[in-house]
Amino acid sequence: MSLLNQTVASILPLDNEAAWAADARLNSLTKPPRSLGHLEELVRRYAAIRRDESARSGRGAIAVFVADHGVAAEGVSAFPQAVTAEMLRNIAAGGAAISVLARRFGYPLKVVDVGVKIDTSTKPLKGVTYRRVGAGTRNFLDGPAMTPEDATRALEVGIEIARELAAVGVTLIGIGEMGIANSTPAAAILSALTAIAPDAMVGRGTGLDDAGVRRKTEVVARALELHRAALASGESMLAALGGFEIAAMAGVCLGGAAFNVPVVVDGFIATAAAAIAEKIHPGLFDHLFFSHRSSEGGHALALEHFKLRPILDLDLRLGEGTGAALAMNVIESALDLFHNMATFAGAGVSGKVR
Amino acid sequence: MSLLNQTVASILPLDNEAAWAADARLNSLTKPPRSLGHLEELVRRYAAIRRDESARSGRGAIAVFVADHGVAAEGVSAFPQAVTAEMLRNIAAGGAAISVLARRFGYPLKVVDVGVKIDTSTKPLKGVTYRRVGAGTRNFLDGPAMTPEDATRALEVGIEIARELAAVGVTLIGIGEMGIANSTPAAAILSALTAIAPDAMVGRGTGLDDAGVRRKTEVVARALELHRAALASGESMLAALGGFEIAAMAGVCLGGAAFNVPVVVDGFIATAAAAIAEKIHPGLFDHLFFSHRSSEGGHALALEHFKLRPILDLDLRLGEGTGAALAMNVIESALDLFHNMATFAGAGVSGKVR
Repeated sequence: MSLLNQTVASILPLDNEAAWAADARLNSLTKPPRSLGHLEELVRRYAAIRRDESARSGRGAIAVFVADHGVAAEGVSAFPQAVTAEMLRNIAAGGAAISVLARRFGYPLKVVDVGVKIDTSTKPLKGVTYRRVGAGTRNFLDGPAMTPEDATRALEVGIEIARELAAVGVTLIGIGEMGIANSTPAAAILSALTAIAPDAMVGRGTGLDDAGVRRKTEVVARALELHRAALASGESMLAALGGFEIAAMAGVCLGGAAFNVPVVVDGFIATAAAAIAEKIHPGLFDHLFFSHRSSEGGHALALEHFKLRPILDLDLRLGEGTGAALAMNVIESALDLFHNMATFAGAGVSGKVR
Repeated sequence: MSLLNQTVASILPLDNEAAWAADARLNSLTKPPRSLGHLEELVRRYAAIRRDESARSGRGAIAVFVADHGVAAEGVSAFPQAVTAEMLRNIAAGGAAISVLARRFGYPLKVVDVGVKIDTSTKPLKGVTYRRVGAGTRNFLDGPAMTPEDATRALEVGIEIARELAAVGVTLIGIGEMGIANSTPAAAILSALTAIAPDAMVGRGTGLDDAGVRRKTEVVARALELHRAALASGESMLAALGGFEIAAMAGVCLGGAAFNVPVVVDGFIATAAAAIAEKIHPGLFDHLFFSHRSSEGGHALALEHFKLRPILDLDLRLGEGTGAALAMNVIESALDLFHNMATFAGAGVSGKVR
């Protein structure tokens, strides 16, 4: 049995009893019942995913997956493809937005090259984990972006990363990405999975002008037409439309669920990965937290379609896991309140009278 | 000239040049232009309020004002009035939600008794600053909640706290409150200032049942009728409807603006205080950050009326400054990114091509 199949087979449904136990404690704390609103829901769901009625806090970590996309040749990004390798270096060197936030919150940052076009592995960059599946995907207008074998391999890279993090005691994993042109496959995937039309799903990415957005929309529409037969399953859709980093993030979502570690999904592109994981294993969304409502393309529409409530709404559209890092801090704040607030009995505070 | 008048007279408009300078730096950082969305707006406005084009970070602090309300006698709260003193003790002792969050984020917590009914100042509680204006306000259905002198005094307590915090280098002040029944005067104030009807503004507070909400709405409507003549100015409205802690928070808003320290406004009750400050000095809202959209009563409607965008939307309705603390951490994260991300030139990352 493949690692992928084995992982999917081992995913349990949420532990509702753990959620109820957490809820009982929430109601004993010195605050009006339910007054911590969505923070209380985060605690209940953390307990249910962890299958731990004590909802014990642990360590957060962030995994950023970096890869290139053949479809960049279609002029669908405002930045040149070389920026993927440049940003891989910048993230690892500590200068990118996610580097700053990971440092701020004390989250170890795992930067994974899953298929950057420019291969730096022969003279490895400090702080980069090399799990290269290829040197960028193929242009999906010329055929499938990845072979089925490479798609599975990239999914399994994500599962392995989730397993490695779980093994060292990580209890909350944030996922993010970097890859020039990757909002194009993400838009194609989300359009296919939500039936929301490409023109409502495609966004400006890193800053396309109107002509660029029209071109990108046309590219997505053509890809969906060309790969129509492949859209039936999550794996075949992934192979057709690609993204090594998208596949790896989908793998972290599946692996996190299998290892009872909640995964915090970043923005538009990470949501496409999560949606692939949900397609592979329906019900998987329950094991994930959606960090924020991005201003990229149809992200808000996609979240609404899937009935997912994001934690933050800050018009972020940077990727890299930046929204995930900020949301992880909110989840940890909720856990901190859960564990460290006084109870009515303990603090001698009177209860409700009416 | 009174401290209040002197403070108001010294408030300058925002420093737009500082905002532009900050914006120029934001555009040099290794990210697509504007991709940090609302975080970039927080940085620009922080620079403009601080009148500091470098938008230097400093220290955050939280001030929680605690007081009692005569109107509690009308049965407008789900909890007994004794809870105000019990929670004053709990907050100072470290067991309340705001105590946990202040500790988590390293914010010194100033807990100020501005008028709790049970006087603990004779055997002072550790960690409480006593600036008592009275032993709770008068029931505003029996006349003005406070004398004009007490209203001014309570406003000046807030100004003094802002001045003290600014003097020790605090660059971001979060304000919160605790006081049984205080969502009733807050609803009256917000209803008067927005012309939104009491039945749309009044909420469940700490958890009133339907009959309680009807009673509370009736109390607010009667108060607005009774004190109609007093609603013309911010000071007279404050005296009529009260809240020593509401007055003190309004004072922090005015003082923060005068001392170029941004104030982060908590939820429903703190927003009422901010709205009083805006009434006293139109334009004051520019100097404040609104931390979150509360699920209490008509808070969302009031924010919309004033065209204020909250940073978070987590259905919190606890008060104490809990939303402010979480939002301060978002503002500080934005500043951290601003100061510590690499620039395109510094990191050797290519710019836009289209």
